[in-house]
Amino acid sequence: MAGFHVRSVLVTGSNRGIGLELIKRFIGKSNPPEVIFATCRDPEGVRAQELKNLASKHPNVVILQLVSGMEPNCAHNQSCILCPEATDSASIKSAAKKAEAHLGGTGLNLLINNAGVMPPSTLESATPEDMLSVYNTNVVGPLLVTQAFLPLLKKAAQGSSQKGLSCSKAAIVNISTVLGSIEKTPETFSFVPVVSYRCSKAALNMLTKCQSMGYKQDGILCTALHPGWVKTELGNFQPNVQADLTVDESVSGLMKVICDLSEKHHGVLVSWEGNTLPW
Amino acid sequence: MAGFHVRSVLVTGSNRGIGLELIKRFIGKSNPPEVIFATCRDPEGVRAQELKNLASKHPNVVILQLVSGMEPNCAHNQSCILCPEATDSASIKSAAKKAEAHLGGTGLNLLINNAGVMPPSTLESATPEDMLSVYNTNVVGPLLVTQAFLPLLKKAAQGSSQKGLSCSKAAIVNISTVLGSIEKTPETFSFVPVVSYRCSKAALNMLTKCQSMGYKQDGILCTALHPGWVKTELGNFQPNVQADLTVDESVSGLMKVICDLSEKHHGVLVSWEGNTLPW
Repeated sequence: MAGFHVRSVLVTGSNRGIGLELIKRFIGKSNPPEVIFATCRDPEGVRAQELKNLASKHPNVVILQLVSGMEPNCAHNQSCILCPEATDSASIKSAAKKAEAHLGGTGLNLLINNAGVMPPSTLESATPEDMLSVYNTNVVGPLLVTQAFLPLLKKAAQGSSQKGLSCSKAAIVNISTVLGSIEKTPETFSFVPVVSYRCSKAALNMLTKCQSMGYKQDGILCTALHPGWVKTELGNFQPNVQADLTVDESVSGLMKVICDLSEKHHGVLVSWEGNTLPW
Repeated sequence: MAGFHVRSVLVTGSNRGIGLELIKRFIGKSNPPEVIFATCRDPEGVRAQELKNLASKHPNVVILQLVSGMEPNCAHNQSCILCPEATDSASIKSAAKKAEAHLGGTGLNLLINNAGVMPPSTLESATPEDMLSVYNTNVVGPLLVTQAFLPLLKKAAQGSSQKGLSCSKAAIVNISTVLGSIEKTPETFSFVPVVSYRCSKAALNMLTKCQSMGYKQDGILCTALHPGWVKTELGNFQPNVQADLTVDESVSGLMKVICDLSEKHHGVLVSWEGNTLPW
């Protein structure tokens, strides 16, 4: 899209997989954002090393700690939900304050809620701890992050002279999945049941629709994206299932879709290829 | 439907509202079930008095304690999620054992997951505790209850000579709502946002679809029902909103729909008037 320019973007869960690749793509744009906030749970951990290397080379990359849910390999495992650090509202608010200081009076154009988990679970094996911890990371996290960054998104929308809705004005993009499509469940359920994940992503789709209703008057675009079945740590978590997309292919598609998002995608689930998916 | 006969039914959250009225209707049928399991959180509490009065007059009504989520007026309020009693797997398993003993070798025809909560919440006011406790009651509860009663449902299906799927053979009915329809959210969001409730019910709809995929081979019908906007304690919880149906009208519709449920309703959200609703 000609003239597409995001001045500031924030990506959660950006130390690996799709999140990390999104950061790289924003860095590599011909007109890169002035500020790229890359958030992760533990910026000092070994799993954030690649992100730290990127930030050391690109001064527009700002790493922020943000605990919006448990890691798949969290030491507390599935009882994380009982741990007060599972979703740390204080860390989210603190990250928003730091972002505000970095932005120096301008708003945040684009919030990408990408952090998520997909542990295996079936109708038989799903437990309360599994259900609640996945919901906490995949739904409560995006809710809280959006609440905290909403003032900055509103500021970006108010400061923009652009008509309509777009990611270069102000937008919330929730990384969802076709596995959260109730309608399309019969196509994939037998080989990848992931019941706790599917339930959480159907709820995230609902949250996206609610956000699209609540924030339209503020000029904030709200869309859920399906990144495809991607070869990431998360995508290959299920035995016997081969993800069919590389991170590169998926994120190439996602970046194009993000550039093209407009009113017609507001409150919609859109695939990495730009197709509307049913709920 | 001629010949419709449920030999055994279980209704959760049956001490008030729609649950209690469903119990009354099953009692009042011309061919009532031989066993009607009415579950509630606290059978000895004052809020179960009407149910206890019914059971004392109708020996086919068996009250079982089942803690599948917090009560809206729970003393722990929204921190219930942190309380180990919030969803008590042991109480659910214990209820299933007692039910098995009552059934004396026959199975359970119909499980109605009716218990649910709808506290007010908006995009601004929703908290982790609110989101998680509502999800616990409205989604994790039905998941656990179904897991526990599945062997009895399978037994009913195996023991039936009926072709196809029906509630008189073996069925799971999850009481959902049109407010869980992502597609229809724009029709109601402005006057009843209930974000935590909507997200939980979208997830319950996904759970219903997953159950329909997982249990079809067992001959168990799985359907989500929308009871209408009903004048119950739960339905009138929102200020400025008037529920437009009496419990009587809603449950009359639900009973007719339950009688008529068949393959075409498997994995579908159906209204109290028998219409299919979009996800």
